[in-house]
Amino acid sequence: MTTLEIRNARGLDGSPVDVRVENARIVALAPSLPGGPGNGVRQIDAGGAILLPGLVESHTHLDKTVWGMPWYVNACGSQLIDRIDNERQWRAGSGHDAAAASLALGRAFLAAGTTRLRTHVDIDTDAGLRHLEGVLATREALADTLDMQIVAFPQSGVLDRAGTVALLDDSLARGADVLGWLDPCAIDRDPKASLDAMFALADKHGCPVDIHLHEPGEMGMFSLELMLERIAALGMQGKVVVSHAFCLGELDAARAEVWLARLADAGVALITTAPPSRTVPPLMACRRAGVTLAGGNDGIRDTWTPYGSPDMLERAMMIGLRYNLRRDDALEIALDCVTYQGASACGFDDYGLRAGARADLVLVDAVNAAQAIVTRAPRRWVVANGNIVVSEGVAV
Amino acid sequence: MTTLEIRNARGLDGSPVDVRVENARIVALAPSLPGGPGNGVRQIDAGGAILLPGLVESHTHLDKTVWGMPWYVNACGSQLIDRIDNERQWRAGSGHDAAAASLALGRAFLAAGTTRLRTHVDIDTDAGLRHLEGVLATREALADTLDMQIVAFPQSGVLDRAGTVALLDDSLARGADVLGWLDPCAIDRDPKASLDAMFALADKHGCPVDIHLHEPGEMGMFSLELMLERIAALGMQGKVVVSHAFCLGELDAARAEVWLARLADAGVALITTAPPSRTVPPLMACRRAGVTLAGGNDGIRDTWTPYGSPDMLERAMMIGLRYNLRRDDALEIALDCVTYQGASACGFDDYGLRAGARADLVLVDAVNAAQAIVTRAPRRWVVANGNIVVSEGVAV
Repeated sequence: MTTLEIRNARGLDGSPVDVRVENARIVALAPSLPGGPGNGVRQIDAGGAILLPGLVESHTHLDKTVWGMPWYVNACGSQLIDRIDNERQWRAGSGHDAAAASLALGRAFLAAGTTRLRTHVDIDTDAGLRHLEGVLATREALADTLDMQIVAFPQSGVLDRAGTVALLDDSLARGADVLGWLDPCAIDRDPKASLDAMFALADKHGCPVDIHLHEPGEMGMFSLELMLERIAALGMQGKVVVSHAFCLGELDAARAEVWLARLADAGVALITTAPPSRTVPPLMACRRAGVTLAGGNDGIRDTWTPYGSPDMLERAMMIGLRYNLRRDDALEIALDCVTYQGASACGFDDYGLRAGARADLVLVDAVNAAQAIVTRAPRRWVVANGNIVVSEGVAV
Repeated sequence: MTTLEIRNARGLDGSPVDVRVENARIVALAPSLPGGPGNGVRQIDAGGAILLPGLVESHTHLDKTVWGMPWYVNACGSQLIDRIDNERQWRAGSGHDAAAASLALGRAFLAAGTTRLRTHVDIDTDAGLRHLEGVLATREALADTLDMQIVAFPQSGVLDRAGTVALLDDSLARGADVLGWLDPCAIDRDPKASLDAMFALADKHGCPVDIHLHEPGEMGMFSLELMLERIAALGMQGKVVVSHAFCLGELDAARAEVWLARLADAGVALITTAPPSRTVPPLMACRRAGVTLAGGNDGIRDTWTPYGSPDMLERAMMIGLRYNLRRDDALEIALDCVTYQGASACGFDDYGLRAGARADLVLVDAVNAAQAIVTRAPRRWVVANGNIVVSEGVAV
């Protein structure tokens, strides 16, 4: 039985907290644990560092990053379809290796305190299941530490590419956890057929769905409407995540309230990157309505975007900036988006700072959540699934 | 005669470049300087690092930061006037020292490659000229390296606080370079009287103006209209900077085009922080119209905001994110906002990578502007006014 004790940590409110971990589970959290170290107990002196739960990345694309590789010069057009086509061509010609890419970025996430992660993995008729196989290898390699969900994601669309549904079907049979999808109007050009195919496949596998909804304005709202009809018809409440959902950021307050109540009833969770250049779902209204709103990077350093970082405290900072959160107590909400809200959106159970949860713990040099986020505070210790992956600030 | 030679640097396009500095001036830039080192010549091997001009911070508040001090817990209300009042109370009760604050942050800017900086300094009837005196001391302390412009800024408004105009007058006589102002409608409540007072004082001192225009929508456009009338009447073309100018981000393209042409005619420059939660002047339209648009942080880690960083490459990243610049060549525009556009907006002459300019040079570990910005690349060497302030990545 492996036992770990963290002493002299502090909660977000500054109060003292010790943690005891046995067999990769938190077994006790208390202001002061009794007794000294026993045999076989590894003790960590947190030195007053703030204790956070393991950070959660709810939306990224490990398979397509160039993280750690030579700089990719982006000379791509500005439309969504330009980026999709550009990437497919780059992948084919660059010797891109989804296993190596995802492993490099997965390790970087761990080193920055992310212990749970949902990654989309491109599935298309050019690449087949090559990306899935690469990311499955990374999941296996990091199985002791990083809890990784894999979304089979048809980045190039579905209806226009015969064979894509079969590939997605195969992906879900071979280890993908979630069915991904995207813009049923703007990309698939036939929202009824597109969403019928999506829900049929999810129903067949009994799996959750995560749809990337970039569609703006009334187009996006129409797609949401069609989704809600199908969630009700199929009893898929609580199984659907909508990523981006820019359209929800265009509604006036009264209409947003109606829609968020409908989304809450359907158990639809939202994930945002908090993009500075786009509209975003209204954070505080989501919280009032009981709609989960989590944060993610989307792609990091890939052919889509040069931006992004495997540091979820930096993503929390972007959330704080996008929603103009300035007070220290408001920044706790930004932290919530990359911790508990992320776990809720993705369905990571046994999460959090509580007895019985998986031992995912981060100790940072800060006095509270606001300082941790704004300074992107050094990760002094990271424990992932009971294993120490950062020790005294150094990845091990 | 102090001579410095930088060899094996690269331009933004990757081409080799050497630099020769004499008496704090760039005297030569060439792919390869002739000859070896002479007596008294300090040589720097750039090792292939990218050469940038010294970075320019066009809008910050050195006097009010808590940089390097214990964390300030923000529990302030959300309105502009709440923040103004909260800060004045905090200053009065906290033992705040504008000299120490500005020196700490000024040094941090230098270490990150900023060699020219415009700082606003609070002038009001509570603090009198205390902030100005503190920042003047910092300017003196850093005079060999940091080229600092001081704006006498009536943060608490002018018309409602008798004696403020006299304090501003005094500030300009005692070393402030620029007259600051803010919202003539929203704060001063009497735009005609407010702007008349502003232009009269600027006219008296023959000094430039930098007005913080937070006013949204038609209110902001009305204030701009009143300003343009006075610029024309007084011949103040080329002497006025408008900071923030959120209202310009609300115009449709056709109206923006008309307005930007008027601003260009009046030589009005704009400065933005590229806030993710507010509208912003249209970057590409400004460039087409010939309106200077520079980037700045605004306050850094103060009672207004926990955010901000003395790293102008991070500010360039925020500009890139706000304006959705993804291509490598587009990110050169973000870099321009924190270099040449900043120098133009603030009127820093003798600026840039050219013979005759002040020797302000930054060498970063990156292959181009995009990588420098996105990775906030390590500053390997920083030369400020001919003096080495960062050597092999270490501030000296």
